[in-house]
Amino acid sequence: MPYGDAMNARVRSEERRAEIVRAALEVIAERGYRGASLASVAERVGLTQQGLLHYFPTKDALLVAVLKERDQWDAVPADTRWRVDLLASLVEYNAMRPGIIQTFSALLGESVTEGHPAREYFTERYTRVRASMAEVLRTEYGDRLPNGLTPERTAPLLVAVMDGLQYQWLLDPESVDMPGAFRDFLRLLGEE
Amino acid sequence: MPYGDAMNARVRSEERRAEIVRAALEVIAERGYRGASLASVAERVGLTQQGLLHYFPTKDALLVAVLKERDQWDAVPADTRWRVDLLASLVEYNAMRPGIIQTFSALLGESVTEGHPAREYFTERYTRVRASMAEVLRTEYGDRLPNGLTPERTAPLLVAVMDGLQYQWLLDPESVDMPGAFRDFLRLLGEE
Repeated sequence: MPYGDAMNARVRSEERRAEIVRAALEVIAERGYRGASLASVAERVGLTQQGLLHYFPTKDALLVAVLKERDQWDAVPADTRWRVDLLASLVEYNAMRPGIIQTFSALLGESVTEGHPAREYFTERYTRVRASMAEVLRTEYGDRLPNGLTPERTAPLLVAVMDGLQYQWLLDPESVDMPGAFRDFLRLLGEE
Repeated sequence: MPYGDAMNARVRSEERRAEIVRAALEVIAERGYRGASLASVAERVGLTQQGLLHYFPTKDALLVAVLKERDQWDAVPADTRWRVDLLASLVEYNAMRPGIIQTFSALLGESVTEGHPAREYFTERYTRVRASMAEVLRTEYGDRLPNGLTPERTAPLLVAVMDGLQYQWLLDPESVDMPGAFRDFLRLLGEE
């Protein structure tokens, strides 16, 4: 096969993989991971289950790809300095993509059940996210926030508010102004 | 059947129901609701699946009983005035019962998936809990908290912190001091 054809085949294969991951995101949002079947993902992209297994040999392999996809969205260039006001923009942005937030809220919920394949991912992710939020707070406020707490003690609260608001908002988007509530929380942090 | 025997039969039946609900709580904590089977609940209490259906005709009926059980635990006498410092005690208490917290965190996560039988329960519960937390804050602080927010705007944050901390704590109990973090949040609210 000429080089160009091999390239094209590889690009097509990667596009197909990306399409499968998007379908898996939808199915997990609808049914959770334990309720999702490879058959339903395959059907959504017009493949047989056997055809899907060519791209992802197991359901867990597909989950790993979904979680990596999330990390890619949330990745910012290495030299980006996150600032507290950018966090407010992230929450605004999240409010425009309920499907993604639903997928990950459902996965986070399931991850606390026994032996869930996403448990380790979430445990490590939260360790990392708390550390990174503490850095953001240190950059903004130094070693003590105006309220006297350290960045390290404030970080779990910041993360908890983001996650907790997502559940309230997904359940009742008419009643819960997620970005507004998050800005209220940021103001609580910044006040003397 | 003499009256006393009928009474005994009724008491036995209620004890059996309670035992089934406790088993269902455990199974949901382990597998989530969608991953839980009536067969596994039946096995745990030494019943056949047919025998279990005598007490709970469907899986959803059992879920309703589980959710009602939660409401009963959390119920306080009608004349109790919740106060902010009692909320801190509630979180201390929650930290001593990971199984229950795991069950409800898993159910909350699943409830945002399509057509989940607990969705309506959680949506209504959060409406009620936000209103009740706003009352607690009003009793403590009046119409404005020291930071200038109204009780109604603070309530979703209070609830979000409680829920969000539960996930971080369930995933990594060694690293996350749930009651301590919650007390930090209460101090944020109370400061001038």
